[in-house]
Amino acid sequence: MPGNIKQLHEQIKAGNFLALARGITIVENELNGYESLLLGLHESRHAKVIGITGPPGAGKSTLVNALLRHWLKENKKIAVLAVDPSSPFNYGALLGDRIRMSDFYTNPNIFIRSLATRGALGGLNAKIIEITDVVKDAGFDIVLVETVGVGQSEVEIAGLADCTVVTLVPEAGDEVQTIKAGIMEIANIFVVNKAERPDAEGLYRNLRILAHEKANGADETPVIKTIATQDDGVAELANAIIKFLDGQKDMPEKRLHLMTDKCWHLIQAHKMKGIDAKRLRKELANAINKESFNLYAFVQGFLNQQ
Amino acid sequence: MPGNIKQLHEQIKAGNFLALARGITIVENELNGYESLLLGLHESRHAKVIGITGPPGAGKSTLVNALLRHWLKENKKIAVLAVDPSSPFNYGALLGDRIRMSDFYTNPNIFIRSLATRGALGGLNAKIIEITDVVKDAGFDIVLVETVGVGQSEVEIAGLADCTVVTLVPEAGDEVQTIKAGIMEIANIFVVNKAERPDAEGLYRNLRILAHEKANGADETPVIKTIATQDDGVAELANAIIKFLDGQKDMPEKRLHLMTDKCWHLIQAHKMKGIDAKRLRKELANAINKESFNLYAFVQGFLNQQ
Repeated sequence: MPGNIKQLHEQIKAGNFLALARGITIVENELNGYESLLLGLHESRHAKVIGITGPPGAGKSTLVNALLRHWLKENKKIAVLAVDPSSPFNYGALLGDRIRMSDFYTNPNIFIRSLATRGALGGLNAKIIEITDVVKDAGFDIVLVETVGVGQSEVEIAGLADCTVVTLVPEAGDEVQTIKAGIMEIANIFVVNKAERPDAEGLYRNLRILAHEKANGADETPVIKTIATQDDGVAELANAIIKFLDGQKDMPEKRLHLMTDKCWHLIQAHKMKGIDAKRLRKELANAINKESFNLYAFVQGFLNQQ
Repeated sequence: MPGNIKQLHEQIKAGNFLALARGITIVENELNGYESLLLGLHESRHAKVIGITGPPGAGKSTLVNALLRHWLKENKKIAVLAVDPSSPFNYGALLGDRIRMSDFYTNPNIFIRSLATRGALGGLNAKIIEITDVVKDAGFDIVLVETVGVGQSEVEIAGLADCTVVTLVPEAGDEVQTIKAGIMEIANIFVVNKAERPDAEGLYRNLRILAHEKANGADETPVIKTIATQDDGVAELANAIIKFLDGQKDMPEKRLHLMTDKCWHLIQAHKMKGIDAKRLRKELANAINKESFNLYAFVQGFLNQQ
């Protein structure tokens, strides 16, 4: 490992936030020392990664906020990675939200970083994996990763997390059958946020039924009602997360599965190196308007030139 | 092109649904003749691809249903590709929904196919692109692609469609700021479905404001209220889609952008060929519990063996 990267890595391990921010930038942009930094990481099993996910408007950021307040009281050291472009932890946030967050930005036990959701084509997942691994090596107890959506991307993100919390809002109640397929398999804990709203009880009941069906005699996926804006139910959620993590300790099969997913994304990112997006676009622009254009023949030709 | 694939392709072009289903299966599973079939496609500019997307519970399938009824009256030939695992067009659907759909399954102007959302790791997007291209060559006027989610995957799917319809429900109204970032850039048309619900007017107004801000003097993204279960607003939506498609005819820049995205996904799929997932898992299982395990060193070693 080059000397300066070795030093940076030692600073990161010692909990230096500036060094960590620099390390993330190196990984994010694949600057000099990028590979050395990753090859020098240890697989930290202390820091636990908690994914907070769900559709837009489910109150994920407010929930992350409430969990931060809760765990700060317990002297936990926490990192927040906001992959959700609409998160107030992210740059795209409204001014009001940014101000609300600013308490945390100066707290020495909290590290916050927003990540671009659409960087280089095809590189998203590998980058988030790499950055999460750098963060895990910096002595945190908990790494909270906030992601948006209930589609494919979220399923992939679930592969990152030791515990995935799926956040829903009451209005989803009467539609809960339709979300069954994708969500049940990734949720370790369900949150019914904004539980003061009229339909909360219906959604809660439906999720409990689904959890019961899925469990088939084993432990049921917990369903927790919260009003994150008022910290209601947040202690219960935090306890459920810790309980789930403690129960996960000896699940080598699940861990192997997640690691295989991670490897796959890293291999994909590696394989795509050297593909010049600008040249691709230029050659495509020349080919696209020809009479006999065929996309698959073009791709075959482009790859043969490499 | 091998003779049997040439014949199959001619049958597909002639509108033979059985041949089309067989062609999709060949592409989906990369059976013999897979590459020949793709290399034999023409870039059809007649068939228009319409993406219907949005969060679970937004009523996307009901909207697709209503659009099918509308366009059948106009003698359009339509294909439906359901990428949404919770879609009643998909196998995962509840029994009641499947029965509701069965009218369409026997209609000679409608072809319906559900696509697995999680097949081989990393192969999703390329497969959907390839299958959509096969379908486009089969003489349809319209190809409806139903996808779920408001995350990364959906943004990628938007690259497929000539027109992307984002479907929301009234309850999202007061949260519409939070969804601004991701959705505004992919929506060509907004639908406020379940418009009979109390908050519909608020969501409608907010989306109109966002559309106005984004347009900055140019054409604003249409926002259309529907009650898909009663066919309310569906004719208006269908007209808005056709109007948008007509206006898109001469947008080479956008087309180039979409084609570049497509190429990128195809290249990615090509590059991942030959990576043996089973061997990866086996070697990882051996390495993972060693004292000095480092994920990045493992991936490097695995790739060096190839």
